[in-house]
Amino acid sequence: MTVISPSAELQRRARRVRRGALELAQCSDAQRAAALEAMAAALERHRDAIVAANTVDQEAAAREGLAVPLLARLKLNEAKLADCIHGLRQVATLPDPIGYRQLHWELAAGLELERVTVPVGVLGVVFESRPDAVIQIAALAIRSGNGAILKGGREALNTCQAVVTALQEGLASSAVDPNSLDLLTSREEIMALLRLDGLVDLIVPRGSNAFVRTVQDNTRIPVLGHADGVCHLYVDQRVRIDMAIAVALDAKIQYPAACNAIETLLVHRHVAGQFLPPAIQAFTAAGVTLRGDEQAMALGVPEAATPADWGQEYLDLILAVRVVEDLEAALEHIRRHGSRHTDVICTDDEAAAARFLNTVDSAGVFHNCSSRFADGFRYGLGAEVGISTQTMPPRGPVGLEGLVTYRYRLRGHGHTVAPFASGAEHFSHRDLQGA
Amino acid sequence: MTVISPSAELQRRARRVRRGALELAQCSDAQRAAALEAMAAALERHRDAIVAANTVDQEAAAREGLAVPLLARLKLNEAKLADCIHGLRQVATLPDPIGYRQLHWELAAGLELERVTVPVGVLGVVFESRPDAVIQIAALAIRSGNGAILKGGREALNTCQAVVTALQEGLASSAVDPNSLDLLTSREEIMALLRLDGLVDLIVPRGSNAFVRTVQDNTRIPVLGHADGVCHLYVDQRVRIDMAIAVALDAKIQYPAACNAIETLLVHRHVAGQFLPPAIQAFTAAGVTLRGDEQAMALGVPEAATPADWGQEYLDLILAVRVVEDLEAALEHIRRHGSRHTDVICTDDEAAAARFLNTVDSAGVFHNCSSRFADGFRYGLGAEVGISTQTMPPRGPVGLEGLVTYRYRLRGHGHTVAPFASGAEHFSHRDLQGA
Repeated sequence: MTVISPSAELQRRARRVRRGALELAQCSDAQRAAALEAMAAALERHRDAIVAANTVDQEAAAREGLAVPLLARLKLNEAKLADCIHGLRQVATLPDPIGYRQLHWELAAGLELERVTVPVGVLGVVFESRPDAVIQIAALAIRSGNGAILKGGREALNTCQAVVTALQEGLASSAVDPNSLDLLTSREEIMALLRLDGLVDLIVPRGSNAFVRTVQDNTRIPVLGHADGVCHLYVDQRVRIDMAIAVALDAKIQYPAACNAIETLLVHRHVAGQFLPPAIQAFTAAGVTLRGDEQAMALGVPEAATPADWGQEYLDLILAVRVVEDLEAALEHIRRHGSRHTDVICTDDEAAAARFLNTVDSAGVFHNCSSRFADGFRYGLGAEVGISTQTMPPRGPVGLEGLVTYRYRLRGHGHTVAPFASGAEHFSHRDLQGA
Repeated sequence: MTVISPSAELQRRARRVRRGALELAQCSDAQRAAALEAMAAALERHRDAIVAANTVDQEAAAREGLAVPLLARLKLNEAKLADCIHGLRQVATLPDPIGYRQLHWELAAGLELERVTVPVGVLGVVFESRPDAVIQIAALAIRSGNGAILKGGREALNTCQAVVTALQEGLASSAVDPNSLDLLTSREEIMALLRLDGLVDLIVPRGSNAFVRTVQDNTRIPVLGHADGVCHLYVDQRVRIDMAIAVALDAKIQYPAACNAIETLLVHRHVAGQFLPPAIQAFTAAGVTLRGDEQAMALGVPEAATPADWGQEYLDLILAVRVVEDLEAALEHIRRHGSRHTDVICTDDEAAAARFLNTVDSAGVFHNCSSRFADGFRYGLGAEVGISTQTMPPRGPVGLEGLVTYRYRLRGHGHTVAPFASGAEHFSHRDLQGA
């Protein structure tokens, strides 16, 4: 992609969203929840127009030969829209992530510090296809007090316009400034959006791994998202074979295209002879192609794995299998080939489990359960923005709290630093929380 | 700067630090605190060698004509080293930032989720001059369970080597792997260090604004730091003039080269006639050059401000002065020209203060106290890594907690997702904290 500077018009629009967002940040919990209800009601009122706009988009996409899976993701019929509206109303009921006082300290007599959660500011949301993501992200943004500049794919243009028109109409009947949401429609604007440092605070990309990586490589703004999900499951030597097979099978086949499905199975050499033959049978029966190292092949894995298979994200019914010397070798394999998403150990040895859970530096480390639990809904976070494999927080499944930051507020009575620097006055540093 | 790919040798060293850090992350609070004491004792043993190495660096720098302020920062004599060792021992006494359980939920019977703070991993620390920063950052890194790859300026090379040799010797007598710390010494390595994505988790730059910006522009790794500190003080219409003058004066002159000193004074037009004449007198007496807009000049500010003065970081005894229409105009000025570091309102009007503290989206928003309080030590955080003006956490003064992230741990008994997806089983989502 080429670097494109934001046009004066785009900067003007971004500043308008920013102003809207600053006012939105001051709305109460109840006002923001009511705004979501107004957005839901407006989507219901505009249902026919939205579905009609989506039909136009679908017909054009079909004429242009858009691939079938993309066509499916583009679809927003009455039933899917109803689901979106239901989801939007659920976001309204989630606990308010802003205004939470994280600390409250007295620095000196009459000088009080507090740290309070506040919205991030303005989100730049870029997505491929999926007009339903517009509704979900807009709901999360407004609920958390953030403005959002949305940019969808060209193929979903009519649908996105119909949706955003409805959402803005809903906001207009609420306490929230409708300018808190804006939709970009021209192709150039996606790259320009990534250059709006200072006006956009966080980029939320929704799309394929390649898409997310391209976004990450072209912006200085923090990006909330993940590029790879190379999850491992390690079967330790002391383990119930049946349990390990059931967990491994679920982790691979329950939804193989998900980022939290496993891609590589590591097996301790002492248990390989017992575990692999029935596991191979189960995976093969489930339609999974196995690719193994020499030892795994000796135990019945039909295809040979090449070095390129380690760390490969198949997102398909393919699984790499490696027999390892011991737990430490498994940890080393994950260190080298993992993507710090979610990794699992199956073992009945508590010490081995503790070593694994303490050592693997992934966002999720699991013991005796499927990697497929790595999900905001299953974790109980409510709606999720996505799953982040970044090291710094927010990481793992990110809910509303990933869209907030904090601010230090200090209140004094004319306090100056000079007397503290000279030693004439002293800090008390007293915790006032709960006091 | 040109992009330089990390050499095989650098990657090997970074992997060695990474392995050291993974073991360090499993050391207990007491072990890490003891390691800091061992580092302090080793610095004391190596005191003469460190001071001698610093003398060599200083002489070479003086011969090469290094600027006097840089020479001063390069200096590490016996007294300064003793301060550093004292600071290192203080870091040992700070509360442990890792192993803190942020949440503990039951997802379903026998399936428990917890979120626990863990070290970030490996820090890449780059700094200009200041060999004392090596000691401070190494202490913060080890205390928080992180490895660190350090890269100092060429002018401090001998000092840094003597310091790191001592620190590693100290670690060798502790439970912490001495390979958790490494020092890079060649010039090319600074840029290569910034390209170690996947091996280095967080870059901590210490140096001038231009230096920090260069680092930010040349890495995909998250950077903890700030480029600008353009702090504002706004004097509202209802205000005690004496208090406002005292606070403004302290905020400007107590240490003008600091990032938390104010650069622009905004004055409500209704109070300008009362406030500015005595304020101008006080600032002038303190040696501060004032540059004002037309209205400020009409009230006695001697020099004219140009548009370039708004948002300018002088780091010197210069202050821009602007008379504004009202609070909203002050907010708009800060929105346009601020750097989201720290901004202050002086007012006796609680509603105006609340509006300011809720609306200005800076890391610090202060009421009736000096911007100079924006500092990790004054806040009571103990040692600080630096002050971040980024939007996402950690922001503001960053202490040990800025060097940790978190990890989700999920423990089950063979739990699979399939029965939850089919509706055969249901999530309980019960909070176990405090239970």
